[in-house]
Amino acid sequence: MAMISYQPPLKSLAIPPVSLSNPKSVLFRCSLSLPSRTAVTSVEPQPVFSSVKAFAPATVANLGPGFDFLGCAVDGLGDYVSLSVDSNVHPGEVAITNITGNNTNKLSKNPLYNCAGIAAIEVMKMLGIRSVGLSLSLEKGLPLGSGLGSSAASAAAAAIAVNGLFGGKLGVEELVLAGLKSEEKVSGYHADNVAPAIMGGFILIRNYEPLELIRLKFPVEKELFFVLVSPEFEAPTKKMRAALPAEVGMPHHVWNSSQAGALVAAVLQGDAIGLGKALSSDKIVEPRRSPLIPGMDGVKKAAIAAGAFGCTISGAGPTAVAVIDDEEKGKEIGERMVMAFMKEGNLKAEASVKRLDRVGARLIGSTPLDRVL
Amino acid sequence: MAMISYQPPLKSLAIPPVSLSNPKSVLFRCSLSLPSRTAVTSVEPQPVFSSVKAFAPATVANLGPGFDFLGCAVDGLGDYVSLSVDSNVHPGEVAITNITGNNTNKLSKNPLYNCAGIAAIEVMKMLGIRSVGLSLSLEKGLPLGSGLGSSAASAAAAAIAVNGLFGGKLGVEELVLAGLKSEEKVSGYHADNVAPAIMGGFILIRNYEPLELIRLKFPVEKELFFVLVSPEFEAPTKKMRAALPAEVGMPHHVWNSSQAGALVAAVLQGDAIGLGKALSSDKIVEPRRSPLIPGMDGVKKAAIAAGAFGCTISGAGPTAVAVIDDEEKGKEIGERMVMAFMKEGNLKAEASVKRLDRVGARLIGSTPLDRVL
Repeated sequence: MAMISYQPPLKSLAIPPVSLSNPKSVLFRCSLSLPSRTAVTSVEPQPVFSSVKAFAPATVANLGPGFDFLGCAVDGLGDYVSLSVDSNVHPGEVAITNITGNNTNKLSKNPLYNCAGIAAIEVMKMLGIRSVGLSLSLEKGLPLGSGLGSSAASAAAAAIAVNGLFGGKLGVEELVLAGLKSEEKVSGYHADNVAPAIMGGFILIRNYEPLELIRLKFPVEKELFFVLVSPEFEAPTKKMRAALPAEVGMPHHVWNSSQAGALVAAVLQGDAIGLGKALSSDKIVEPRRSPLIPGMDGVKKAAIAAGAFGCTISGAGPTAVAVIDDEEKGKEIGERMVMAFMKEGNLKAEASVKRLDRVGARLIGSTPLDRVL
Repeated sequence: MAMISYQPPLKSLAIPPVSLSNPKSVLFRCSLSLPSRTAVTSVEPQPVFSSVKAFAPATVANLGPGFDFLGCAVDGLGDYVSLSVDSNVHPGEVAITNITGNNTNKLSKNPLYNCAGIAAIEVMKMLGIRSVGLSLSLEKGLPLGSGLGSSAASAAAAAIAVNGLFGGKLGVEELVLAGLKSEEKVSGYHADNVAPAIMGGFILIRNYEPLELIRLKFPVEKELFFVLVSPEFEAPTKKMRAALPAEVGMPHHVWNSSQAGALVAAVLQGDAIGLGKALSSDKIVEPRRSPLIPGMDGVKKAAIAAGAFGCTISGAGPTAVAVIDDEEKGKEIGERMVMAFMKEGNLKAEASVKRLDRVGARLIGSTPLDRVL
């Protein structure tokens, strides 16, 4: 079944109110004593590893006409979460011990205000963990506010790590819900980054009440590369969202809907050219947001002129994303896009060429328990 | 390649002005002497049959969130065109000799004002037919104005018939363009009926300038049935189009776009349940049009209650269409829908259960030439 249906957890799962007196305390802890309706077993699961390390990939959301309901994962860029059973942490709680990466001083170590922390707490709730304390270390591979799903990657890695440490008892849909809790607090109730970050590939968010996700499989025999070009420029999600029109003219609605359909068809049919064309075809969101990112129009033109199948803004920007089916060609396209950002927008930018990630968040390391279970 | 790209014909292909003094003359003829840019050969093709008979299926356009860009063909309902080389018809011209079927007295026998005639003329132009006269007989299997692509079926059957008579030299995309000329004159420049009528299956209209069609293949191993329930009620396309909102709120735009994507995914993944769900999910067009068709809301509810996977208005109505994967169950659903039309809308209605047509318009008979070519 390509469709996943899932009832959202009861409201009683909401994170309990906590003292905000010291939100940046290094080892903030929160109670996880609430029983979970979604726990897969009434018996509290025990850890199967003493520690694990998880990776979650960057994601490109919106994808032109796929605004707010379609996203995909790109390999080789992402965040890492290391998680350990820690007897120094109060049972049923999680503590964030370390955050590394560029500009991570903005990030709170209070797990209630940290993407990874919130997702970890949610998964612990779902599993009903009450007897084990965890310490979490976050390694940010993704720049913040770049439009590459940075917060979603942290949440996804944390969710996968907690679930993995306790034997992987939750399914992806529950992990997406845990990640969604995190996204809701940090960047809005949207699953188009966190769902592909957890599940890999292309994911269509069909519904939120209840959450329904459709996995769109790009054929494995076909190659797909994303040219990601991030300028040194801040494009706050709030500002980019404020640029959206409140209403859409009927012809544009029909056009964008048809392009959304064409985009989905291109993914499932493995048609990279058609995918690029659809990516480039948005008449509603991109035209409003593009002028807010200096040089973006020129960057898109440069990408297409250099042979990209299509180009648009990744997420809420400022990263530009182009698609192509060849890595070397992708590098050339990236160079032209970097040049265009400088020439047209006077912005320094960095390019990378990444494959479609078909796997999503995964454990990349684990340490056995010292004792026999 | 799933994608078909085609440049529209030059404006010089427009039908030349003709005298309108007697538009309903039984054997109206028009000149087809203009050279065609899209003729596949500079040598005028000769007939390969003395007569042919073609069938084109009914079509369901709009499909809920697929409004104005998605349609599909249903088998076992449709129009027939018989076409003969006729030395009594002026070379390069077509004459409509006969029209049969219910309520066909509304239809003109002037080929310039008849769906089949216009399409036939267009195909003759594209082929560059100057030396042969044709007589055309139209057998309407579809009721007019029912929302089942009646005009498109006539156009599709005529286009296929002319092309077939001359050896099938034109591709489907050219035939769709010919059909589109007909639709433009009769019901608006929309290919979401005529493209599936000609090509069969599900067709997504991605673009008109140039025309780009995407064939969405519903897996052959899966069954798909359409329950078509037509009430005795007139829902003029113009009135139904006037009911559309000029603008769409952003949340509804995102919702309908995501459902359009889900619909395309369901078709390609052979997910009849998901297809029905998407069909039922339109928040923009159906809510405006449904109140104009007495009982439609109740009919939809009755269909779903009887087990249909989804239900919406077919085309611009008044036919209601529901989907299911089993013919017998489809009949039960149809009965409930007929009852609901009577109970909720005080309308008599007829139900039929039809398979997805995967073939489209086709020749169903031919008579060899008397002479050896």
